[in-house]
Amino acid sequence: MLAVGVVGGTGYTGAELLRLLVTHPQVELRYVTSRSESGIPIADLFPNLRGFTDICFTEPAVDTLASCDVVFFATPNGTAMKMVPELVENGVRVIDLAADFRLKDADVWKQWYGMDHACTDILAEAVYGLPEINRTQIRSARVIANPGCYPTATTLGFLPLIENAMIDDQHLIADAKSGVSGAGRGASVATLQAESSENFKPYAVDGHRHLPEIRQTLAAVASHDVGLTFVPHLVPMIRGIESSLYATLKASDLSVADIHQLYVERYSDEPFVDVLAPGVMPETRSVKGANTCRIAVFKPQDGNTVVVSSVIDNLVKGAAGQALQNMNIMFDLEETLGINQVALLP
Amino acid sequence: MLAVGVVGGTGYTGAELLRLLVTHPQVELRYVTSRSESGIPIADLFPNLRGFTDICFTEPAVDTLASCDVVFFATPNGTAMKMVPELVENGVRVIDLAADFRLKDADVWKQWYGMDHACTDILAEAVYGLPEINRTQIRSARVIANPGCYPTATTLGFLPLIENAMIDDQHLIADAKSGVSGAGRGASVATLQAESSENFKPYAVDGHRHLPEIRQTLAAVASHDVGLTFVPHLVPMIRGIESSLYATLKASDLSVADIHQLYVERYSDEPFVDVLAPGVMPETRSVKGANTCRIAVFKPQDGNTVVVSSVIDNLVKGAAGQALQNMNIMFDLEETLGINQVALLP
Amino acid sequence: MLAVGVVGGTGYTGAELLRLLVTHPQVELRYVTSRSESGIPIADLFPNLRGFTDICFTEPAVDTLASCDVVFFATPNGTAMKMVPELVENGVRVIDLAADFRLKDADVWKQWYGMDHACTDILAEAVYGLPEINRTQIRSARVIANPGCYPTATTLGFLPLIENAMIDDQHLIADAKSGVSGAGRGASVATLQAESSENFKPYAVDGHRHLPEIRQTLAAVASHDVGLTFVPHLVPMIRGIESSLYATLKASDLSVADIHQLYVERYSDEPFVDVLAPGVMPETRSVKGANTCRIAVFKPQDGNTVVVSSVIDNLVKGAAGQALQNMNIMFDLEETLGINQVALLP
Amino acid sequence: MLAVGVVGGTGYTGAELLRLLVTHPQVELRYVTSRSESGIPIADLFPNLRGFTDICFTEPAVDTLASCDVVFFATPNGTAMKMVPELVENGVRVIDLAADFRLKDADVWKQWYGMDHACTDILAEAVYGLPEINRTQIRSARVIANPGCYPTATTLGFLPLIENAMIDDQHLIADAKSGVSGAGRGASVATLQAESSENFKPYAVDGHRHLPEIRQTLAAVASHDVGLTFVPHLVPMIRGIESSLYATLKASDLSVADIHQLYVERYSDEPFVDVLAPGVMPETRSVKGANTCRIAVFKPQDGNTVVVSSVIDNLVKGAAGQALQNMNIMFDLEETLGINQVALLP
Repeated sequence: MLAVGVVGGTGYTGAELLRLLVTHPQVELRYVTSRSESGIPIADLFPNLRGFTDICFTEPAVDTLASCDVVFFATPNGTAMKMVPELVENGVRVIDLAADFRLKDADVWKQWYGMDHACTDILAEAVYGLPEINRTQIRSARVIANPGCYPTATTLGFLPLIENAMIDDQHLIADAKSGVSGAGRGASVATLQAESSENFKPYAVDGHRHLPEIRQTLAAVASHDVGLTFVPHLVPMIRGIESSLYATLKASDLSVADIHQLYVERYSDEPFVDVLAPGVMPETRSVKGANTCRIAVFKPQDGNTVVVSSVIDNLVKGAAGQALQNMNIMFDLEETLGINQVALLP
Repeated sequence: MLAVGVVGGTGYTGAELLRLLVTHPQVELRYVTSRSESGIPIADLFPNLRGFTDICFTEPAVDTLASCDVVFFATPNGTAMKMVPELVENGVRVIDLAADFRLKDADVWKQWYGMDHACTDILAEAVYGLPEINRTQIRSARVIANPGCYPTATTLGFLPLIENAMIDDQHLIADAKSGVSGAGRGASVATLQAESSENFKPYAVDGHRHLPEIRQTLAAVASHDVGLTFVPHLVPMIRGIESSLYATLKASDLSVADIHQLYVERYSDEPFVDVLAPGVMPETRSVKGANTCRIAVFKPQDGNTVVVSSVIDNLVKGAAGQALQNMNIMFDLEETLGINQVALLP
Repeated sequence: MLAVGVVGGTGYTGAELLRLLVTHPQVELRYVTSRSESGIPIADLFPNLRGFTDICFTEPAVDTLASCDVVFFATPNGTAMKMVPELVENGVRVIDLAADFRLKDADVWKQWYGMDHACTDILAEAVYGLPEINRTQIRSARVIANPGCYPTATTLGFLPLIENAMIDDQHLIADAKSGVSGAGRGASVATLQAESSENFKPYAVDGHRHLPEIRQTLAAVASHDVGLTFVPHLVPMIRGIESSLYATLKASDLSVADIHQLYVERYSDEPFVDVLAPGVMPETRSVKGANTCRIAVFKPQDGNTVVVSSVIDNLVKGAAGQALQNMNIMFDLEETLGINQVALLP
Repeated sequence: MLAVGVVGGTGYTGAELLRLLVTHPQVELRYVTSRSESGIPIADLFPNLRGFTDICFTEPAVDTLASCDVVFFATPNGTAMKMVPELVENGVRVIDLAADFRLKDADVWKQWYGMDHACTDILAEAVYGLPEINRTQIRSARVIANPGCYPTATTLGFLPLIENAMIDDQHLIADAKSGVSGAGRGASVATLQAESSENFKPYAVDGHRHLPEIRQTLAAVASHDVGLTFVPHLVPMIRGIESSLYATLKASDLSVADIHQLYVERYSDEPFVDVLAPGVMPETRSVKGANTCRIAVFKPQDGNTVVVSSVIDNLVKGAAGQALQNMNIMFDLEETLGINQVALLP
């Protein structure tokens, strides 16, 4: 059994982590911290946990967390980087669901997150926790930067095409859409149901924090910088991300069957990536509550534009589920243990 | 043309007032006040108003508002009672969409709203603005207490039965349901889309502020106190209230056709109450954006329980639309002027 | 391992059964039948099942189903009663999720379902599968009538009060609300999203098929007929039922604490009934995807009306989850096996 | 007063036409036809119309419709083309909200709609009813092909850039999203609330009927063929279309301010196109129930990709509202008469 701590368990990624942790067969959930809710049973805040755990929120403290095998951070950006060095010194392995360790370049990180980075040495060693790319490094990592939700869907969608240099990677377009849980559990007017339901809109068109993250990963795969236009949109539903990707094929005679086959082969050993049959449309509900990314490829009117659609549950494969997938890999557990759930449909 | 001011135009009742005022043919919208948004065009906050008005939010000030013929208060409870006396002295007529003037007994008011009442003399003269009961007094009123949303739907549903003393009025039950706009436009976790959509729940079962308001009106109609259990619920939709009412008939041989006829006759001259044909179910979407209350009566299994279902749009007949209906009556305009809109369906 | 067959697996109760069956550790899913989809992989119809099963829909046939230990019927009313006698003769145990075996009186059944009953002898022996009442009989039953969704929520809500004869059981009121999945997966205009979302309405006020079912169970508990007004409503969400129950206490000095204690004790050994702490409101999202019924009791204004609110997921405790709970009991498995899932929140 | 007939008034575009027609000050609604609902009051089908009209659905018949000044077709594709010739001969002007007269090339029409065209001469003279392009021809047209919903949002979004030849028009991308009312009011499983709410997906990626329509209009503007990838998506809301458009600027030093100014000038005289201030995001709720198209332009990271976001209400500017705008133009009424409504927000 792994002794597990969660720092910052009151947001949606925290809630989803708790949902998965309380039934994971190799996890002993030891601490869930929250300054604001300290002393309160976590099942009082999240009534779905009633009957599954009796533990209460506690104040975050490195000395108690140090007894854990692994600590998850589900905190606002900038929190983990202050506590992680001491935890790592104490031999605790860390999985950060926030953005503190996602961008390798501390200057770029500062530019997008508006803070100096607090521990650039740990930033340097942290492994970007996308198992489909970095499984080997994840095994031995001390610190995992768990990928963002949009980057997970978008990167997995572009990956085979970039790896095989099949597209013009200077004019990539990602038109992405997310359910409102992506905006977090903080009180806000913009995501009140009376505001965000029965509405659809783009946001952050001039620049979203997930843009440099996606570019960094794709550039590493391509071995050179890529050009990407990334436009996120807010969808009036709770969970789910769909990312529609557009690129120009270098060889316009490449058939859609060839492209499909490329994807099937690339992901044939991946337990959580599902390439759909030709013509089948991905839909977010097919992954609601599940850790799966489903992908389809198209070549409309047999032109030279390839279209990829990729769906995930932003809270699972886009956050908590992928975090547990990383934990399973780090501790030599079966990779699917405790996260192999069937999506809730309808 | 009436010179109109709106105090507190940043919530949902304010937004709905503005939607109706900017196209009302006899209204000149002169001031819309908001301390927090002063100086900003109201169409920046509510983009549906773009093209209909250029005016900006201003600081609330009695001396400027005093130039209006009528001032609407769409403020939090306890605000209007501080400004209304001076406005009334200046000859301004007032329609308060908050609760400041709804409960005639200042002690009861204090008990439910937790404040001493600031102007009990004005409270005494204020007219409860339910036109179906108080049309005559509304005509000459200086101050209108615009009814609450639940009380409007519930009172209109019970009214004919109480007026005719046909039911045991000591054990009335009102099981009411409201869309989330009823919870207001303030930032809050409970009505985030990720919390309140795909969810249904009762709230305030032990006592809601609309309970004494409904009891007061029904008691005045009955000429004695009534017993009422009132349980509100939150519905995952933006607009609409449905109130399901249950009572025991004194004469169990009264047929449903007789009861239906009673309702038809009671409301035959009412422009905004629609008694549905026998067997037709009211639905909130049939009044979305409209000032109409639709009502149906049932007598299941021909027993001695009568069931009434009453629907309104909480922001229109339950707030802003009824406020304009009151304004039309007060200023001898056609009662339906500017508020005779077709509900938006689908 | 149990060999399991599902007849009629294309509706929502069927889909939910399949979701739970494919991960149940003691189940071998052998047949899923559908005339219309025969030959098609079930994961093509329900993409959440991709990766969990490869089996295809087959034509329903008694001779193949006869090899199963247990067969579930998730068929329209009137189908199971034609196939069950032959299955039972072949030693197959049956759990019917439709209404064929719910009403003990074949005349009453005909009155509400408009058909002659096809096997009144099996009807006589069938056990009403509400474990909280009939656990012992369920163990040895050959045929289980799995309860309706409204009856489950409503009966569990009234049960302790009726068992202890604490209320006037001649004037019970149940104001119930269901998500749209309760209306089934058949093509229909009324539950198109453009019709049923952003809408709330009562339906079947004059008589719903679940009324006689609830009355039958409560009458058996009370040992005499009960009077019940039952009004269902349609809620714009996918899953969930909330039933608000109203009754007059015989002894008005009974405190809410006493009533709460009564409920706590009645359900203390029940794995799937959760009595909430005083003042906590049940909400449907707390049971989304879970087999739990959560209940709260209130006594507003300390009057003589008791209010109970009971929530379930209509597809789980109200259908497929309860069916598996019954299966677990029938085959001496741990009662919670395979259905002890955490609700999906948010 | 114009005598108006509506053929096929039972779908959503029909319902929306009726909502607008019953309050249009220059319209006498004379006939609304429906084979299936003949004899039934239209307010029985659409309860929002109760109190606004007493007329009943009638059988469609050319001889009665011939007495109208204008007849709207809100019928399935292929119906209008069979009745229009005779109506036109009788001097009736026609506005077809279906696709019968949208594609100028009868062969292309057949390819996408699967039928031979029934009146190619009328097809030749029909005017594509996008007032922002064809206002002059609309004035005198006998037959108007009312544009599709996606084409309206997408064409208005691309128009200034194409007119000024500022982009590479061989690689246009339109990632469009529509609410479920776009799928129509026919019974179908795919748009049941339990299927389409809490879900997001692309559809018809390999080719949607609105693709040739958009290409035809843009090609006419550009004076040569354009290359367009068009991917529609289904959004879990009732009303609204957002179209996100991507193109490569020919001159990458063109500033976003210049582009914005271009749009402002192009649409300065258009009553129903609103170019938003720089940085403001269009959102579909800002046009819910209104005839307005709101547009914003972006140039992310100051690269050479221009992004345009365009929103409309698919049932208003995308169908019924635009049809009335065309009627107003055809009959020399004020262009905004009867359709200058404030969007319903929240």
